[in-house]
Amino acid sequence: MTISVNDQPAVDVTEFETEFARHLELSPEAQDLLFRRARTANTFTDEPVDDDQVKAIYDLAKWAPTSMNNQPLRIVLVRSPEARTRLVRTMAEGNRAKTASAPLVAILAADHAFHEELPKTFPHFPGARDMFAANDAMRAQSADMNATLQVAYFILAVRAAGLAAGPMTGYDAADLNNEFFADGEHKVLAVINIGKPGEDAWRDRLPRLDYDEVVTSV
Amino acid sequence: MTISVNDQPAVDVTEFETEFARHLELSPEAQDLLFRRARTANTFTDEPVDDDQVKAIYDLAKWAPTSMNNQPLRIVLVRSPEARTRLVRTMAEGNRAKTASAPLVAILAADHAFHEELPKTFPHFPGARDMFAANDAMRAQSADMNATLQVAYFILAVRAAGLAAGPMTGYDAADLNNEFFADGEHKVLAVINIGKPGEDAWRDRLPRLDYDEVVTSV
Repeated sequence: MTISVNDQPAVDVTEFETEFARHLELSPEAQDLLFRRARTANTFTDEPVDDDQVKAIYDLAKWAPTSMNNQPLRIVLVRSPEARTRLVRTMAEGNRAKTASAPLVAILAADHAFHEELPKTFPHFPGARDMFAANDAMRAQSADMNATLQVAYFILAVRAAGLAAGPMTGYDAADLNNEFFADGEHKVLAVINIGKPGEDAWRDRLPRLDYDEVVTSV
Repeated sequence: MTISVNDQPAVDVTEFETEFARHLELSPEAQDLLFRRARTANTFTDEPVDDDQVKAIYDLAKWAPTSMNNQPLRIVLVRSPEARTRLVRTMAEGNRAKTASAPLVAILAADHAFHEELPKTFPHFPGARDMFAANDAMRAQSADMNATLQVAYFILAVRAAGLAAGPMTGYDAADLNNEFFADGEHKVLAVINIGKPGEDAWRDRLPRLDYDEVVTSV
């Protein structure tokens, strides 16, 4: 199958389809949009990404599951030139140019004070907030793990909006946290460039591990 | 909009749609299947989940991105009654009945020896394996973070196959790791029940945080 989208050159995704795809209920177009055709973009066009698009992305991603519905992900949209400059300074050398030029850059972080919301988000277990308040290690582990699940949901939701995501983990995390999260309760998990893919946006597809290398039965 | 699927009662998902959904390229049916209508199931029908369905799920999830394409997720399908019994013993009390009765149970783990695959999966950076071999803390962090992203991709791919996922993190992790990963290199991240949702499969939808509670701009 050959698909052209967002004015990008058509790509042949036939090689990525397998005989097992007949077991999927999701349409082939949606499989391609979210998983097979979508790529991590390294360049973007100048077309802006506005707040309504981010709201559409969030309104989709928010429904995917977290432990005890704890939803620890927090998102900072780096909109001002001044904030962009501060962010770029904390990025690894190889990530600076694309972070400086992407239409939108979002900092995705885990809120380690997520438990304060549990009376609202998990009301049938009134002791939840105090349980997490009493155990810093458990709270940190749950914040990081569940916010990381939500980073993945967010990446797929960006793709659902017809946009490309460029997730990066190459930065000085302590420096970035100091710069953007002075309260000490938020820990950066990823910085994501978002926009329409530009020229030479990606390299060749890298190989994926085979089913038999990943899945075993006992 | 009212939707019926998998012989389940129709549910009204209108309340979950927002005006911003017009910005999404993904079809409303796919939005519902993966995010809005899908729910974490606590009961399942007897209908089995076969290996071809898991291959379809894996063949979709594997394309979603990881750092340096490192793909640390490993999946153990608990197929034999003997293995199921060993797993149920390690689960928290409240998770035992559903873990014992789900058509398929999968253990999702991070492979902390993922770097051995990097010469194949990230061939243009030949020093990648040695870089991770020399730094246990960095390797563990990357394994857990990226495998957790892949847990999320896997959950959404289960839904793409028209199945319900019931992810659980309530278990004795050290006990489970000893029981199923004697090599000491694999760390459980989640146990996921998979199948068609059964009777009373879920509670009422729990509230999600509002956009303004999660997203800020600087």
